[in-house]
Amino acid sequence: MIVTFSDFGVTGPYLGQVRVVLARQAPGVPVVDLLADAPAFNPRASAYLLAALVADLPAATVVLGVVDPGVGTERPAVIVRADDRWLVGPGNGLFDVVAKRARARERWSIRWRPERLSRTFQGRDLFAPVAARIAHGEWPEADPFGWGEGELDRLPDDLPEVVYVDPYGNAMTGLRASVLPPGARIEVGGVVLEPKGEAFWYENSLGLAEIAVNCGSATRTLGIEVGTLAAVLDSGWRVRFCGTV
Amino acid sequence: MIVTFSDFGVTGPYLGQVRVVLARQAPGVPVVDLLADAPAFNPRASAYLLAALVADLPAATVVLGVVDPGVGTERPAVIVRADDRWLVGPGNGLFDVVAKRARARERWSIRWRPERLSRTFQGRDLFAPVAARIAHGEWPEADPFGWGEGELDRLPDDLPEVVYVDPYGNAMTGLRASVLPPGARIEVGGVVLEPKGEAFWYENSLGLAEIAVNCGSATRTLGIEVGTLAAVLDSGWRVRFCGTV
Amino acid sequence: MIVTFSDFGVTGPYLGQVRVVLARQAPGVPVVDLLADAPAFNPRASAYLLAALVADLPAATVVLGVVDPGVGTERPAVIVRADDRWLVGPGNGLFDVVAKRARARERWSIRWRPERLSRTFQGRDLFAPVAARIAHGEWPEADPFGWGEGELDRLPDDLPEVVYVDPYGNAMTGLRASVLPPGARIEVGGVVLEPKGEAFWYENSLGLAEIAVNCGSATRTLGIEVGTLAAVLDSGWRVRFCGTV
Repeated sequence: MIVTFSDFGVTGPYLGQVRVVLARQAPGVPVVDLLADAPAFNPRASAYLLAALVADLPAATVVLGVVDPGVGTERPAVIVRADDRWLVGPGNGLFDVVAKRARARERWSIRWRPERLSRTFQGRDLFAPVAARIAHGEWPEADPFGWGEGELDRLPDDLPEVVYVDPYGNAMTGLRASVLPPGARIEVGGVVLEPKGEAFWYENSLGLAEIAVNCGSATRTLGIEVGTLAAVLDSGWRVRFCGTV
Repeated sequence: MIVTFSDFGVTGPYLGQVRVVLARQAPGVPVVDLLADAPAFNPRASAYLLAALVADLPAATVVLGVVDPGVGTERPAVIVRADDRWLVGPGNGLFDVVAKRARARERWSIRWRPERLSRTFQGRDLFAPVAARIAHGEWPEADPFGWGEGELDRLPDDLPEVVYVDPYGNAMTGLRASVLPPGARIEVGGVVLEPKGEAFWYENSLGLAEIAVNCGSATRTLGIEVGTLAAVLDSGWRVRFCGTV
Repeated sequence: MIVTFSDFGVTGPYLGQVRVVLARQAPGVPVVDLLADAPAFNPRASAYLLAALVADLPAATVVLGVVDPGVGTERPAVIVRADDRWLVGPGNGLFDVVAKRARARERWSIRWRPERLSRTFQGRDLFAPVAARIAHGEWPEADPFGWGEGELDRLPDDLPEVVYVDPYGNAMTGLRASVLPPGARIEVGGVVLEPKGEAFWYENSLGLAEIAVNCGSATRTLGIEVGTLAAVLDSGWRVRFCGTV
């Protein structure tokens, strides 16, 4: 199975063009668009959202992940193997949280280049053909490209920010609920939230702490958006993520 | 074939996560997303819209229908057979109009539970696996769960409300055009509409009475939205649906 | 492969209903939704956008193209063969730019009519079944229906207008970058743009001249939208497209 994770948007021709390449070059392989409105131009927030979503994907799935503000610059194009899943896309940190949380990981820099490589749409021209090949058990020209010494260790385990706003106005954070103490209070947008109340946080279906407002839109009510910082206030487990995030 | 009918929205990861489950558990079965923006949290309006759409589906189609404001409460999870089609989703009335209009109907309460059942996303965790199984001719643990005496009889045949606003601003009602007398007048948003004029109603491609404005948006022009009441004014066929709706 | 190109919108039941027909009548044929938000009710702008997209489609692809403000009127329903690709949809000029740019072209008027033909949704009732048949190598009743003498010659090679606004607010024109002189200046919305600057134009991944604003929305910054005229100002290659466009 190939799944796409991108900030292409659900409108526009970008996702469709990628799907045409996959239909042609990976015939018979099921393709699912997992998310088309990842935090735009924001690989850092996207990385924490993707890591929550990847946990549910079957073994051998190939993730075509494209949140790529640096397209056209010298950032590398990479293949990552994280346990038994594959990820193909820009080497800008988008796959680093998935890699950090995996028991085993490898990374390669893609040397192969297609005959036509547009400056602005490597998702279609480079990453989709590579994902198609990997889904078929083939392999493009690529060089080992591991992470730097301690690079993944320095990456925060969780991201205390809003990383996604869903169609209902609920705000997902990059905090896994499982790492928070029971009854933790989360401050976001100047408001302190508990696991109950009019505005509250809860563990969503991805395992993330999500901010919601009863019968309303958290983003409108609290004035928060992707990138708004969150802080876990619980005494005895006060975390300051600000430093290296 | 499996078709999805939901209020998940076209953005967000919900539909994609459901599609991953179906691709994995119902390999080889075509899946079509029929509607992803059903009236949100509104199974009653959704039920009349779904009934209009189901009429066109091939025999043996499995409808995965999720408009489920009561997720996480005690509402049952059901399988419905309506003539030669199947429906899987919450037992909150979403499938009742389809059932009422079928020549033959059966209903079961799903007893089977998955290993992981999130509190908020039974579409992914419970209904999608069950739909996949039924599409493969298998059957989950389930108990007969018929409708109450006269329950479907008391359900209005048609719903005199706006049930959907399409991307062009046209407003579908829950009224089948075929049950309206020729030349019927429909009052909606304080305006009386005939089958012609600047603002008018017509039989849409689903067979429903739809409110439109020439070269404009009916919802903006008339100030109507999902839930706005409509009334059929035609003399000699005046209908008051208000009571039990 | 069948690809859809339409102004159905990504919300609403229209695309889903078409996909149900294709899944049923063209089993085993991959279907990709290439674009669902083509310029609404605007077959002329859509024709130049479609021509840019078609260039990348594999041989034997069937394009189901529906931008059809004249549905329900007497406009013909057509099949076009342009080199080794097929197009099915309304005979309103939507396929004329593709045909003009092809080395070989043919056109037929579809005589076949389905048992049920709604007045407003021929995409579902007429074009989808015909596309499915052609994808299977079959042929509906149809009559040769060539273009008028010089009809395609009089069609402008490129369209100096905004033809699409993407999710990021970039504005595609109907001008192929390859026909513009190096360093051409494009006037749009009262502003003159060069290939660099805060607001600028560049060759996008479809080969079209696209208007963008650094880290911003071109449409909001420049106040332009689909239909806004553009003019190529470069001396020695001044083009006035106004006449016949």
